[in-house]
Amino acid sequence: MNIAIVGLGIIGGSLAKAFTEYTEHRVIGINRTESVVKQALDEGAIHEAGTKYSLANADVVYMCTYPKHIVSFVRENISIFKKGCIITDVCGIKSEICGELTEICVNGGLQYVGSHPMAGKEKYSYSASEAGLFVNASYIIVPCKADKIAVDTIATLAKEIGCGTIRIASPEEHDRMIAFTSQVPHALACAYVMSPCCPNHNGFSAGSYRDVSRVAAINENLWTDLFLSNSKPLSEELSVLIDNITNIKNAVDSGDADILRELLKKSRLIKQGLGE
Amino acid sequence: MNIAIVGLGIIGGSLAKAFTEYTEHRVIGINRTESVVKQALDEGAIHEAGTKYSLANADVVYMCTYPKHIVSFVRENISIFKKGCIITDVCGIKSEICGELTEICVNGGLQYVGSHPMAGKEKYSYSASEAGLFVNASYIIVPCKADKIAVDTIATLAKEIGCGTIRIASPEEHDRMIAFTSQVPHALACAYVMSPCCPNHNGFSAGSYRDVSRVAAINENLWTDLFLSNSKPLSEELSVLIDNITNIKNAVDSGDADILRELLKKSRLIKQGLGE
Repeated sequence: MNIAIVGLGIIGGSLAKAFTEYTEHRVIGINRTESVVKQALDEGAIHEAGTKYSLANADVVYMCTYPKHIVSFVRENISIFKKGCIITDVCGIKSEICGELTEICVNGGLQYVGSHPMAGKEKYSYSASEAGLFVNASYIIVPCKADKIAVDTIATLAKEIGCGTIRIASPEEHDRMIAFTSQVPHALACAYVMSPCCPNHNGFSAGSYRDVSRVAAINENLWTDLFLSNSKPLSEELSVLIDNITNIKNAVDSGDADILRELLKKSRLIKQGLGE
Repeated sequence: MNIAIVGLGIIGGSLAKAFTEYTEHRVIGINRTESVVKQALDEGAIHEAGTKYSLANADVVYMCTYPKHIVSFVRENISIFKKGCIITDVCGIKSEICGELTEICVNGGLQYVGSHPMAGKEKYSYSASEAGLFVNASYIIVPCKADKIAVDTIATLAKEIGCGTIRIASPEEHDRMIAFTSQVPHALACAYVMSPCCPNHNGFSAGSYRDVSRVAAINENLWTDLFLSNSKPLSEELSVLIDNITNIKNAVDSGDADILRELLKKSRLIKQGLGE
């Protein structure tokens, strides 16, 4: 198949490298900044430096731009895509874009399937991309109104680049779970390093500091978009977290060992109950 | 030197294994549950299965029991220790125990130096111990009123088992920083897994979930003691964290991209400013 990747950041670049390295598909790279396309071509991460007109040759298109540019890009170029082609995205939010993308694609004779590979790094941009990024990662598919064959194609491609689990979800289920698994930890990392203690942590810290603060060097433009595109589930999960931290704080403040021990025991049982 | 280790849990067990594997010192293991001492002896983690009377032969004693048992153990056995010996502990809090331990030791003709190796795991007990636990870890020393030679001895021993950095701190500085680097992440991990979303995270999660929740399978007895023994600094740091999360939540709720972006940018600059 001909696979077009629009947006060669960490995820788009890694998809390109994974498809060229692990599969026989032909990869067309499209990126606003041309120097990145040239670098990807020079490195063999893509087979063709494409433009939007190359979309006419693509059987599958991965939209890997910022969330807010996905819908407008597809709408503006809807007449270029090959009829029947599958359009997917790798965006971290789904409810806000899936409805509109489905409508545009159905009207244009295309298939839209939402995707979200659960892989990333605390770095971003093409220079951080790597072929092995998706190995053993979970790959979430949000089928929307796409045909089964389109959904199966996206699932097969995910397996071909090494993904471990394929998880099917509705847009709402996806966004609620991602608020918890990804957005809250990112908000948390940012909140954590804002403590006045943080600049002096060296020599006093180990794995706990490192793990909680890992993603604090955040891409503020991308994550502002992601947070605001998923504000209701994120806000609800942040409330849950604040309440749970407050419960622990209240037990500490009151000096009540029994209540505190019960709270911590509850956490232990949840974590151990998941076999983790 | 003869080194006695009282309490063969993950830290005491790892100290024993590290000293027997990496140094020429003679290691005496003392533990309330005798089967653990026997196992340690069988495995070569200690040279001698000791009792409290073995303390008479120790040049350095590492107190690795639960925090609340440290002071009472030293007080009850003060007449047994060899005159001039160095007593240290590996406890995660210092203000609450350092004053009393210093007084008991000075009156008994012993040297007390506080220690806190910044190493651990999400597992505990002797079975989780390993010789390499301290390799490249930071080792915090709280000298209190000990002689320089006693402090230097503890520092040298830390280096001998592989510690990277030696950090000297007052009890208050130690406790404030540990509230931030260690206790807050543990409280946070527990609060995080209490979300109703947690049991369903599988397939929706990756590194962010794994890192924040890592230490949630907490030893609730130990950490209840640690939290309540450091309640003021911990409570203050939890307040700082709750405030910072609330600021992010408020920006999300108001849909104000500029404020949200500035908050996230501030975090990025702090984290990057630390070279992390």
